[in-house]
Amino acid sequence: MERGVQGVTPQSEDFSSWYNELVIKAQLADRGPVRGTMVIRPYGYRMWELLQGQLDRRIKDTGHQNAYFPLLIPESHLEREAEHVEGFSPELAVVTYAGGKELEERVIVRPTSETVIGEMMAKWVSSHRDLPLLLNQWANVVRWELRPRIFLRTTEFLWQEGHTAHADEADAMRETMLALGMYSEVAREIAAMPVVEGEKTPGERFAGAVRTFSIEGMMRDGRALQAGTSHYLGTNFARAFGIRYTSEAERLELCHTTSWGMSTRMIGGVIMAHGDDKGLVLPPRLAPYQVVIVPIGRGEQLDTALRAARDLAERLRAAGIRVHADQRQHLSPGFKFNDWELRGVPLRLELGPRDLASGTAVLVSRLGGGKEQISLAGAPDALAGLLDDFQSALLDRATRFRDERTRVVDDWDQFAEAVRVGWALALHCGQASCEADIKASTGATPRIVPLSGAPATGPCVRCGNPSSYGRRVIFGRAY
Amino acid sequence: MERGVQGVTPQSEDFSSWYNELVIKAQLADRGPVRGTMVIRPYGYRMWELLQGQLDRRIKDTGHQNAYFPLLIPESHLEREAEHVEGFSPELAVVTYAGGKELEERVIVRPTSETVIGEMMAKWVSSHRDLPLLLNQWANVVRWELRPRIFLRTTEFLWQEGHTAHADEADAMRETMLALGMYSEVAREIAAMPVVEGEKTPGERFAGAVRTFSIEGMMRDGRALQAGTSHYLGTNFARAFGIRYTSEAERLELCHTTSWGMSTRMIGGVIMAHGDDKGLVLPPRLAPYQVVIVPIGRGEQLDTALRAARDLAERLRAAGIRVHADQRQHLSPGFKFNDWELRGVPLRLELGPRDLASGTAVLVSRLGGGKEQISLAGAPDALAGLLDDFQSALLDRATRFRDERTRVVDDWDQFAEAVRVGWALALHCGQASCEADIKASTGATPRIVPLSGAPATGPCVRCGNPSSYGRRVIFGRAY
Repeated sequence: MERGVQGVTPQSEDFSSWYNELVIKAQLADRGPVRGTMVIRPYGYRMWELLQGQLDRRIKDTGHQNAYFPLLIPESHLEREAEHVEGFSPELAVVTYAGGKELEERVIVRPTSETVIGEMMAKWVSSHRDLPLLLNQWANVVRWELRPRIFLRTTEFLWQEGHTAHADEADAMRETMLALGMYSEVAREIAAMPVVEGEKTPGERFAGAVRTFSIEGMMRDGRALQAGTSHYLGTNFARAFGIRYTSEAERLELCHTTSWGMSTRMIGGVIMAHGDDKGLVLPPRLAPYQVVIVPIGRGEQLDTALRAARDLAERLRAAGIRVHADQRQHLSPGFKFNDWELRGVPLRLELGPRDLASGTAVLVSRLGGGKEQISLAGAPDALAGLLDDFQSALLDRATRFRDERTRVVDDWDQFAEAVRVGWALALHCGQASCEADIKASTGATPRIVPLSGAPATGPCVRCGNPSSYGRRVIFGRAY
Repeated sequence: MERGVQGVTPQSEDFSSWYNELVIKAQLADRGPVRGTMVIRPYGYRMWELLQGQLDRRIKDTGHQNAYFPLLIPESHLEREAEHVEGFSPELAVVTYAGGKELEERVIVRPTSETVIGEMMAKWVSSHRDLPLLLNQWANVVRWELRPRIFLRTTEFLWQEGHTAHADEADAMRETMLALGMYSEVAREIAAMPVVEGEKTPGERFAGAVRTFSIEGMMRDGRALQAGTSHYLGTNFARAFGIRYTSEAERLELCHTTSWGMSTRMIGGVIMAHGDDKGLVLPPRLAPYQVVIVPIGRGEQLDTALRAARDLAERLRAAGIRVHADQRQHLSPGFKFNDWELRGVPLRLELGPRDLASGTAVLVSRLGGGKEQISLAGAPDALAGLLDDFQSALLDRATRFRDERTRVVDDWDQFAEAVRVGWALALHCGQASCEADIKASTGATPRIVPLSGAPATGPCVRCGNPSSYGRRVIFGRAY
């Protein structure tokens, strides 16, 4: 197979190899020594910090407080919610030996924290005045992965998990949708991923949830990526852990709880939603470097260019732009151009002797469009505007891509063709056996029932039985 | 034993009970279900976030980049550095079962990350151009604790761990001292803890280090708390993991590495360095709420006071002050006063009908000094100044306390008396057997050889043999 720039397989030839190679070559992450674990390198971790900052602000602005709960959970706690433990059992990592001896009770490394947080909520909530209880934590979780893939499915990943307790279903459902809305906004506005919000079908629900909602983004190979989930847990965990409150009417009631999470998987989503044959294309709001400056010249002229690059970087930094002046002297400008294209920096400025003489720099956008000159004097303002344009253009491009590859289908052949390259919007009977049949023939699964879908009923696209859900379902192959 | 306000044992009666009860009552933290683990509640976690923000900024400003390394480490990796594994073995938690079956190789839950980071550094470093490599991670670690104590010694704790690789000893030692200086500054400027910087004696070194430095703070019971450590690891880990680079002279050389950490233990330090019989006393720069407003009145007058409290809170927030208006209507003002004193809020404003009529509020400082009136119009500016004063006053008080309880001693009886209530500055022979003897008789251990100490030699305070270290050593009982 032919290699592209920097030895990365072109996306158009083999999407999967392109992804795996790019993650390493762009220095986003590396494989860890224990199977399925990853090392997030500074370039990838900075993207995560930027995403965290955006999401954390929204979580706090909506009245949630951050806290931290233990990594280690007694096995007996996990077992209290039957569906929950059944769903997670195959993926658990278990500590059996600690402090120099066998443990009397096995301890689970958290795969998620509903149980340990449920236990604490039961201690903290007693009156209706304690509600709603709105908590969030930033943490690592461990789920043993059989088919690991960096960022997308790793044995350990980083996430935030919101956990809230409410007096009734209505308030808990409002919370569930609020969290989904935050995710949708962050995906769209920050990651430039035009996600669709919807509800999971019963077979795709979180273990222990009454209703599960998610946002789904389309990757550039047409597959769906679940990029954030929000669960209404009903009274399942409240009953298992005794989360009860005394109402204003002095009655003892069970709380209704929710949980919701977004993870480092989003970094994988950003790679796959925007990248191309040349490498990453990063949305400016998540780019560790929004602008890179490459000084050009030899000898004294290079010294002048280096000095000018540092000065310009200083001015851009003062204007709030994340900028990097590439001062490496053992590498050629051409190598640097390819390198920063591979690493997805939105805008590149080339600064050579002729540019400096005329008080300009050559500007190249990672989205293409050729070289143009910009004035050094006006660079901070001009670049701030261009970065906003870049962010919008990326969202527009991804939206067009998604729309072009989403087809309303009522016929099986059309369905099979639609999910080969993207998503099918189809009527479905809702039967598990029919879902399994569709998956076996096409690899596609029901992703979500979109919240925005118009009412629709009719025969199931596969089996012809009457449709369920009252609207069309998005089917697609998924990560 | 008599109980103080809100049922907390007075500090003066039993320091240890005071601490344990206060941590729970002030809602800083709770015990987790697995022995030795803790739940950090929102009030305690906010302090950690504020500390994190301060430290993270300094870490980045000095050229370090954040990254994230796996929680799970193969047992064989840990074994590559002999002293390191020997030091940590008794505290390890081991995963032996995962993904539904026994693991072929046991996996350690990280107690610290030198080994897994060493493994990755070896992959990333090849040329002198790759150095220095300056990394940091914010993470949880697990060390099985036999005598757990919330924040001070917990089976799981949160920290940052810096890990760096350098071309030579001089550069690595500069880094080691840079990190120590950051810790010292954060402890002093942010936590108002007048720590002393120094070097650990050989018996107190980090497992695998060539030299270990720490900052030590004095708690209000006279004991020492190690509040941050910085290690020069020499070429020990570089040799074990193969961290090598090609020098400019084209020779293959071993790197010199460092590691340094500050943890949630600092929260325990803040509690014990400043708290009193009434509860916490928080330094404004770490206080989740710097100012609390308690509205006072009944019926319509209360409504007016509540509205005024919300307006004032809004104005203070706009001025960058972390403020909370306590609008709970089922609790009396007196209860609230005690509650916020227990929780250590630096400044309290009482807002009643008479105050509102005169455009003022009653101001009470957690450091005492009686009630005074302040004008509502000038409140934002006045309070910002008063918070700065509070921060300085707290540091001054802690500095006086430490100095009063630190004695230069040359005689064994004076030594024993000094370490009963505080620290002894004494000459010591440096022999492990003599250290053990001192510990057995007094409970005191050598904390550090202070960097700022004047040269001094003479007979050992205990055994009379010639002193070591070239200066006096701080001895004290420690957490």
